[in-house]
Amino acid sequence: MAVFSSLTPVFVAVLCVVVLYLFKNFSRSEGKGKTDAKSSVAARPWVDEDLQDNTEISPVEDDDALADGEDDVPHVPYVPVLYTPEVMLQRSRDFYTLLNARRSVRFFSPEPVPRDVIENIIRTAGTAPSGAHTEPWTFVVVEDPQTKHRIREIVEEEEEINYKQRMGEQWVNDLQRLRTNWVKEYLDVAPFLILVFKRTFGLRPSGKKKTHYYNEISVSISCGILLAALQNAGLVTVTTTPLNCGPQLRQLLRRPPNEKLLMLLPVGFPAPDATVPQLHRKPLEDIIVFV
Amino acid sequence: MAVFSSLTPVFVAVLCVVVLYLFKNFSRSEGKGKTDAKSSVAARPWVDEDLQDNTEISPVEDDDALADGEDDVPHVPYVPVLYTPEVMLQRSRDFYTLLNARRSVRFFSPEPVPRDVIENIIRTAGTAPSGAHTEPWTFVVVEDPQTKHRIREIVEEEEEINYKQRMGEQWVNDLQRLRTNWVKEYLDVAPFLILVFKRTFGLRPSGKKKTHYYNEISVSISCGILLAALQNAGLVTVTTTPLNCGPQLRQLLRRPPNEKLLMLLPVGFPAPDATVPQLHRKPLEDIIVFV
Repeated sequence: MAVFSSLTPVFVAVLCVVVLYLFKNFSRSEGKGKTDAKSSVAARPWVDEDLQDNTEISPVEDDDALADGEDDVPHVPYVPVLYTPEVMLQRSRDFYTLLNARRSVRFFSPEPVPRDVIENIIRTAGTAPSGAHTEPWTFVVVEDPQTKHRIREIVEEEEEINYKQRMGEQWVNDLQRLRTNWVKEYLDVAPFLILVFKRTFGLRPSGKKKTHYYNEISVSISCGILLAALQNAGLVTVTTTPLNCGPQLRQLLRRPPNEKLLMLLPVGFPAPDATVPQLHRKPLEDIIVFV
Repeated sequence: MAVFSSLTPVFVAVLCVVVLYLFKNFSRSEGKGKTDAKSSVAARPWVDEDLQDNTEISPVEDDDALADGEDDVPHVPYVPVLYTPEVMLQRSRDFYTLLNARRSVRFFSPEPVPRDVIENIIRTAGTAPSGAHTEPWTFVVVEDPQTKHRIREIVEEEEEINYKQRMGEQWVNDLQRLRTNWVKEYLDVAPFLILVFKRTFGLRPSGKKKTHYYNEISVSISCGILLAALQNAGLVTVTTTPLNCGPQLRQLLRRPPNEKLLMLLPVGFPAPDATVPQLHRKPLEDIIVFV
């Protein structure tokens, strides 16, 4: 307190403003709003997808109609697909069997994959719901061998730095036990690399920034559907998150600055001698609670 | 500067520490590490799912083996499911057709849904990949009418506050154009409410906290698979994110503090007169880029 008595009131005021400003941002960012999306959305905590569809789409995709005051998205009857209880049960069993056979595979065959299949799979991923129906995803499908190799170089370079400089002792020990290193051969071998970018914001016709609510959650949901579609088609992948490589890969692939790399998925057929770690999934009772 | 000259060196030091501390946290939280997961994972930027499986599972689920130095997860041959190109193409088309028919539906029939079907659907969601194979999800399935009604009260209470106090003008205008309000009748009517919680961290046998890398992305991927499984079974839902209601709903459902509500999905059959907004999805060329 003695210290404070030596301050001019003006300075105390300046100090308070600075500290309060920084603290406000600090606490906000440490709080609920952990992603761009969430902090932007803090003023509209309950976001209900098709309600968003209406509120967001009109002003954004239909500026003229907005001017005309005709910007409601009309509702149309929903045409359901209904099955008997027996068929529902069988379908739910079969779908579980299909997806429970999915494993992350890192050993690929160079055998080519029909492009049409990849297109249908990405069409399918594009049916995911998204905050405000912004569909904030870009799927970059790399088949050019030179580009795949450059991606591998960028990734392995970062990975080597991580391995030698950034990793904690536990992590390095784990890797030693794994007898693995930073080599990612599958980035050359897999016929396709799918790099999934989240569009962190959009642009309105006016040129004004358009918030993409929950863009990371939306794109992740879309990736879940993508994984199901790959498995359904008999293809394999491994879900990877090349965090530090994002900016370099974005530039290599000439994506705009509002797009951030979320995942990189090598896609193809498994190598004949592919192996997977012998893992177990939690039993249902460990993940479900009935109330 | 004149102001500073009036300060005691001691105070300048204190001031710098405070400001730098706050600013450090501010910038970090505004930077790459936007979620718990990402900030924890900053030291291991490339996280490759089944690699994580190995590095994480052993010490966590097999402490004794760790002590014995036998904590490698053995690899086993991967048994692929292979289809002819024609079959792959047909399967990818059919799966797209199935999921493209999915819509967010907010008008439910009270008609009961077989519990076995819900169990299979959540089993299916549980096959999602997850950072370090932590499977950081809890699916709370609410069928008890009193609990569903209490959830509706909590949600609508928050929603009314949002509507009357928290929302921006644009949002309120949009809602007026929608002629909607904060009433969420479907929370009473849908036979099941599935509340999806992310487990933000786990506990090792030692009682030590276990980081759940990318828990929000992992649970969102799992929700994507859940949506596909619901559609496959002929059920409907709407993807909602009751952000401000999380803590109250967590307490109502007696979930531990490491679990955070990510999504609330009412699940059931559509009402006979259910409608959906007439929306269009982006054409493939707007979401795919071939390189």
